[in-house]
Amino acid sequence: MSRYLDMVDSPQHVKSLTLEQLTVLAQEIREELIRVLSVNGGHVGPNLGVVELTLALHRVFDTPKDKFVWDVSHQCYVHKMLTGRKNRFHTIRTTNGLSGFASRSESPHDCYGAGHAGTALSAALGMCAARDRLGTDEHVVCIFGDAALTNGISYEALNNIAQTTRRFIGILNDNAYSIARNVGAIANYLNRLITHPRYNAFSREFQKFLLRLPKGELALKLAHKAEEGFKGALAGLGLRPAGEGEDPAAGADGRGGYGNPVLFEEMGLRYLGPIDGHDLEMLITTLEFAKTCQEPVVIHVLTQKGRGFEAAIKNPEKFHGSGPYDIRTGDSPPVKPGTPPNWQDVFGQVLVKLCRQNNYLVGITAAMPSGTGLKYLEKAFPDRYFDVGIAEEHAVIFAAGMATMGMRPVCAIYSTFLQRAYDCIHHDVCLQDLPVIFCMDRAGLSANDGPTHHGLFDIAYLRCLPNVIGMAPKDEDELQDMLFTATLQSHPCFIRYPRGPAEGVPIKEQPQPIPIGQAEVLEPFRGQGRPRAALFALGNMQSVARRAAELLRSEGWDVALINPRFFKPLDAGTHEFFGRTADVVATLEDHVLMGGYGSAVLELYSDRGITTPVVRLGWPDQFIEHASTVEHLRQKYGLTPERLVEQIRAAYERAGGGGLELDTAPTVLPGALRAS
Amino acid sequence: MSRYLDMVDSPQHVKSLTLEQLTVLAQEIREELIRVLSVNGGHVGPNLGVVELTLALHRVFDTPKDKFVWDVSHQCYVHKMLTGRKNRFHTIRTTNGLSGFASRSESPHDCYGAGHAGTALSAALGMCAARDRLGTDEHVVCIFGDAALTNGISYEALNNIAQTTRRFIGILNDNAYSIARNVGAIANYLNRLITHPRYNAFSREFQKFLLRLPKGELALKLAHKAEEGFKGALAGLGLRPAGEGEDPAAGADGRGGYGNPVLFEEMGLRYLGPIDGHDLEMLITTLEFAKTCQEPVVIHVLTQKGRGFEAAIKNPEKFHGSGPYDIRTGDSPPVKPGTPPNWQDVFGQVLVKLCRQNNYLVGITAAMPSGTGLKYLEKAFPDRYFDVGIAEEHAVIFAAGMATMGMRPVCAIYSTFLQRAYDCIHHDVCLQDLPVIFCMDRAGLSANDGPTHHGLFDIAYLRCLPNVIGMAPKDEDELQDMLFTATLQSHPCFIRYPRGPAEGVPIKEQPQPIPIGQAEVLEPFRGQGRPRAALFALGNMQSVARRAAELLRSEGWDVALINPRFFKPLDAGTHEFFGRTADVVATLEDHVLMGGYGSAVLELYSDRGITTPVVRLGWPDQFIEHASTVEHLRQKYGLTPERLVEQIRAAYERAGGGGLELDTAPTVLPGALRAS
Repeated sequence: MSRYLDMVDSPQHVKSLTLEQLTVLAQEIREELIRVLSVNGGHVGPNLGVVELTLALHRVFDTPKDKFVWDVSHQCYVHKMLTGRKNRFHTIRTTNGLSGFASRSESPHDCYGAGHAGTALSAALGMCAARDRLGTDEHVVCIFGDAALTNGISYEALNNIAQTTRRFIGILNDNAYSIARNVGAIANYLNRLITHPRYNAFSREFQKFLLRLPKGELALKLAHKAEEGFKGALAGLGLRPAGEGEDPAAGADGRGGYGNPVLFEEMGLRYLGPIDGHDLEMLITTLEFAKTCQEPVVIHVLTQKGRGFEAAIKNPEKFHGSGPYDIRTGDSPPVKPGTPPNWQDVFGQVLVKLCRQNNYLVGITAAMPSGTGLKYLEKAFPDRYFDVGIAEEHAVIFAAGMATMGMRPVCAIYSTFLQRAYDCIHHDVCLQDLPVIFCMDRAGLSANDGPTHHGLFDIAYLRCLPNVIGMAPKDEDELQDMLFTATLQSHPCFIRYPRGPAEGVPIKEQPQPIPIGQAEVLEPFRGQGRPRAALFALGNMQSVARRAAELLRSEGWDVALINPRFFKPLDAGTHEFFGRTADVVATLEDHVLMGGYGSAVLELYSDRGITTPVVRLGWPDQFIEHASTVEHLRQKYGLTPERLVEQIRAAYERAGGGGLELDTAPTVLPGALRAS
Repeated sequence: MSRYLDMVDSPQHVKSLTLEQLTVLAQEIREELIRVLSVNGGHVGPNLGVVELTLALHRVFDTPKDKFVWDVSHQCYVHKMLTGRKNRFHTIRTTNGLSGFASRSESPHDCYGAGHAGTALSAALGMCAARDRLGTDEHVVCIFGDAALTNGISYEALNNIAQTTRRFIGILNDNAYSIARNVGAIANYLNRLITHPRYNAFSREFQKFLLRLPKGELALKLAHKAEEGFKGALAGLGLRPAGEGEDPAAGADGRGGYGNPVLFEEMGLRYLGPIDGHDLEMLITTLEFAKTCQEPVVIHVLTQKGRGFEAAIKNPEKFHGSGPYDIRTGDSPPVKPGTPPNWQDVFGQVLVKLCRQNNYLVGITAAMPSGTGLKYLEKAFPDRYFDVGIAEEHAVIFAAGMATMGMRPVCAIYSTFLQRAYDCIHHDVCLQDLPVIFCMDRAGLSANDGPTHHGLFDIAYLRCLPNVIGMAPKDEDELQDMLFTATLQSHPCFIRYPRGPAEGVPIKEQPQPIPIGQAEVLEPFRGQGRPRAALFALGNMQSVARRAAELLRSEGWDVALINPRFFKPLDAGTHEFFGRTADVVATLEDHVLMGGYGSAVLELYSDRGITTPVVRLGWPDQFIEHASTVEHLRQKYGLTPERLVEQIRAAYERAGGGGLELDTAPTVLPGALRAS
C-alpha cells in the first residue's frame, strides 16, 4: 500500500489515524526528512527530534484556529508536511521553494515567523492576551527549546505570563540527551530536574495514572485534582540540603540536587513532566490534560536530536543545521579541490594566531562556536574562550566589562544576531568608547535561510553611532590585516564579511596594520578614454566591480577601482578625489541601499559640494527572500555587473544630457491639504 | 563644628569615621541631596535609599581599585559625593556640571557608565573574568535593583556567573517597601522571599551571629561554616505545599509561600539576606563577610526609596526622577500660565480618546506609565493597558503577537529605550509587516540626562528597515492626526516626538487621517526675491526653520517652508519639486546627521539626478553631553537659525561661485599602500 505520508495532507488526517498508524507515519516522516535534507540541507537534528511531538500536537489541537508558536522555528518541517505543504517539501530552502522557517505568508497554519531564538513565549503571550480580550477560545501553544532559556527575552516573558492570562501552554522541548553543548546555570538546573530520581518517580506515577483514565471531561477534572495531590506530596520531598547523600543528581560542587520544578512554579507556571518526547500516547494524553488547564502550564518534554538517523545522533552539532550529505553515511560531499577556505575559518585561525602574540585578546560567542569559527580558539586557548549561550546582549556588555580592565575582547556574532545587542553596542561600547572588536560573519546574504538570517543592515545601524570604526575586507588576507589593525585601536571596531568561501588569496605570515580610514586604490584612472567612472566596491563586491570595469572599458570608458575598506570613517580625501575627477562614481555594497555605505558617500559629497552623479548598487528597500544560491538573488535584484553598467551609463547620460526637467509634480499643492 | 560632609572628600575618610560619625554623615548627605536636587532636579528617591549602603560599600571596599558597577547608575549621587566630587555636587545635571549617571570620563571611581537598566551584572561579570585572567585580586561589586530583574539581560548574566568566576559580589537593592509598582512573577517572588517568617527568622539569627563575631580572618572562616549550617537547616523548612495554612506569605492564588532563596541558589549564587539596608553596622558586617566568599554571592538588601524625605516616601513615583521642588513641601513649582501640555500627556489623552472609538487598540509600556503618558490609559481602560516591566524586547514581541490576532497595539517606548528591541522591531514587526504602532517619546534631547537618554538615532536605525512608516509631528494636533492615521494602517508605524511641552496649538475634536508619505507645504515660494531656499523642517524643528526663513527673507531670499511629516516613506514628489526649483534645499532634524532624514533626502536626490545643494542641520557625529537646557546644546552644536542661514548662504555661494576646485589631495596615491 501507499505510505500514510502520501495520504496525509492536513491535520484532520492526523486525527483520523490510530496510534499504531501514527507510529508508522512517524517513521515515514523521518525517512522523508532524511532523504530531502540530504539534498537540500537544513535543520536535520531538530526536526528528527520533534516528529512525535508535532504529530501529537496536530492530533490534539486544531490549527489554524489554535496557534502553534515555534521558537526559532527551524524545527517546523514536520508541521509543514502535515499542513498542506507535503508535496512542496522537496523544495525547502531552495529558490521559490518553502522557507526553512515558519512564515505567515506561506500558510495560515504558520501563525508566527521566527529565526532568532527566544521570541516564542512573548509572541504566544501576546496572542493569549488578544484572545482573552477578544473573548475567543483558541489554544495557544508555544514550543521552545532549552537553549531559548539561555536568552533573556524568555525570562521577560515568563515574568509576565501568570499576570496576563490563565490559559497558556508552553512546551519545553529539551534535548539534553544530545551531546550538544549547553551552557550556564539553567542547563545545569534542567539537568538536575530531569535526573532527580524522586521527581521522576512522581512523573512516572502521574503519567501512568493519566494513561489509565477513561476518556471524557469528568475524568480530566479528576486528573486535575489528582495532579494537585501528587504535586503536594512531591513538594514534601523537594528542597533538601546539599550533600545529604543518596541523591545522584547532586552537583559535583556539593550544591545541587534539588531537582524540583520550583523555578517554573515560582514564575507562576504549572509544571508537568518530564515526559518522553517520543512516546506518542503519553504526549497526546498530556496535551489533552494541558488543554483543560485553567492556569498557565509548561510541559517538559525530553527529545533526542537526530532521532532515527545514526549519523545525526552521533554528530548533533553538524546535523543541527547541515548542508547536503550522503544519506547512508551522513558524510558531507568532498570539498572541490581549490575551493578557498570559508571566511569563518580564516577568522577563527587568524584569531588564534593573534592570541599567541597578544595575551589580552579573548573571544566571545553567543552559542555559535562552529558558525563563527571560534571553535579554533576554544581548542587552542580554552581559558580565553567564552560561550555565553544565546545571549548577545550579555555577550556585548560582558565584553565591554572586560575591556574596561584592559582586555581586548573579540565578539564573534553574525551580523543579523548582533541586532539583538544594538543598545549594548551603543551604550556599553560606543558611548564609553571601549576597544571591543566585533567580527560579523554572515554580513550579506545567508541564501538558504532567508530574511531572518541575511545580514544586510549592519552598516546602517552602526555608522550612525559615534566612535565606530567599521571595516569590510576584500579578501581573507585583508581580513587578517583588519583584525590585527582592530587589536591596535582604542575604539570599538566592527569587521563585516560574508558567509561562505573567501577569495582564495594567500595569507601573509605576519599581518600588517591598515591606517584607519584609508581606502586602497586598486586601479587608478589610466588617462585613456572618456568618460571616467570610479567604482568603490566594499568588501565582497570586488568581483562585480571588476567585471563591470571590464565591460565599461570595452566601451571606451576609463575606469578606476577602489577598495574603500572602511564604511566609517570614510576616506574623505580619496572619495573626494575621485568624486571630482570622475564623470560617474559608483558605490557597491552587499547591504541595503537605505542608509548604507553609498549613503555615507552621498553625505560626504553633499557636504563638500561635489555634484558628480553617484550610482549606488545594493539591496533594495524590501525583505529579501531565501534562495538556493546568492547568485539567484543577485540576478533577481540586479546586483550584477551588467545592471551596474546600465545604471552608470544612464547616470552619465542624464547628467550630461543637460535637460534636467521636472518630471514629477508635487503631490501636495501649497495649502491644499488643510483645505481639503 | 563643621559638618562631617565638609571634611569627607574621599573613600579613605569614610574608613576613618566611627559608626556614630557615619550615622551623622548619612543624615548630612540626605540633607545635601534634598537641598541640591530641589534646585537641579534628579533621582531623589533612589539616592536617599542608598545612603547607608553607599557608605558601607566605601567603608569595606577600596575604589578605584575595587569596582562598583551601579545598574542604571542614577543612584550613584552619594558615591559621587564620597569620591572627590562633593564640591561640584551642586552642578549635577547642569551645563558643564556633573552627570546624573556614572561616567568613566568623570572619575576613576566610576568604573562603568550606565543609563538603561539591567546591564550591571553582565559588565561586572566581564570585569571578574578579566581580573581572573589577569591574576589580580580586586573585588567587583554589582549593585542592581529589583526592577533590573524584570529585564532579560540580568538573567543572561545570572546564567553565566557561576561558570565564569568564583568571586562575584551582587547586591540586590530591593526597595519593595515603596509603593512604586512592581510587575510580574519576579516581584511576587521577591515579596514572598522577604515576607517569609521562617526565612526571616534564619536571616535575623545569622545576622546576630555575624555581629557577635570578633574581628579577624579566623572568625570569618568560622562564619562561613556557620552559614552553611544555617542554610542547611533552613533548607529543611523550605519548599512546602501550597495552602497548608500557617504561612502568611502564601499568595492569594493559593500557590505561593515558598519564600526561599532557591531561585538564586539554582543560579549558582550564594544568597545572603534579606538585610536592612539602613542598618550601617549590619551592612558593613555582611559586606566584610561577602568579601571573603570564594563563590559568587548575592546580598539581598532592603531599602526604602526616598528615606528621610517625607514627600518622597509618600510619592515614590514622582520622586523617582523629579524636577525642582519646594524643599519643605515637595511640591513642584506652579506651571507658568500658558505653558503648553507635555507631548507625553497629549499622546496619553489622545490614545484614550481613540480607544473609546476603536476596541482593538491597546497600550503597552515597559515600566514607564508616567513618562510615556500611558497612565491615562491605565486609568480609563485598565484591561487594555499592559505594563510588562523593563522588558522592551518582550514588549515589542508581545505587541506583535497581539497584532497577529487583529489587535492594534500601541507600544509607548522612549526613542532611546527602543534600541533595546531593535531585533524584535526588525523580525517580529517589520519582517512580518504587522500593524504595531510605536510612539517614541524623548526623540530628540533629554537635556539633563544626557547621552544615555537622548533619542537621536531612531531615524537612522529605523529607516533602513523595509515596511516602516515613520512620522514626526510638527505640533500636538498633528500628533493626534498621526496616531489616528497609524491606527488605520496595516503596516508598522513609528511616531517620534520630543520631551517637554508641545507647541500649544488647539487639538481638533476629531482627528483627520494623513495620506501616507505626504508632506505639508506650510509656506510656498512667493515668487518674489532670489535666491530661493526650501526649508524642510522635520517635527519640532519648525521654530528654527521659521526664524531662519525670516532672517533669509530679510536678506531678499524667497523661502519655502515644508513640513515633511514622514521620514519614511519620503514624499518624493514634493522633495523633488523643491529640489528642482530652489537654489538651496535645507533639511532640519532633531537627530544625528549620519543616516538621518537629510541623508534620505540626499539618496532621493541622487537617484533622481538632482544636484541642488542640500544643507543638512542636525546633531554631529559625536555623543552629546547633558546640559541644563536643550537650548544650551543647540547653541553649542549650531542647531540654530543663525547657523542654518550661514550654511545656506555658504552653500549657495559655493555652488554659484563656479570654482569647484579640488581642495584635498587623495590620502592614498594609486598603489602606494601596497608598496610601502
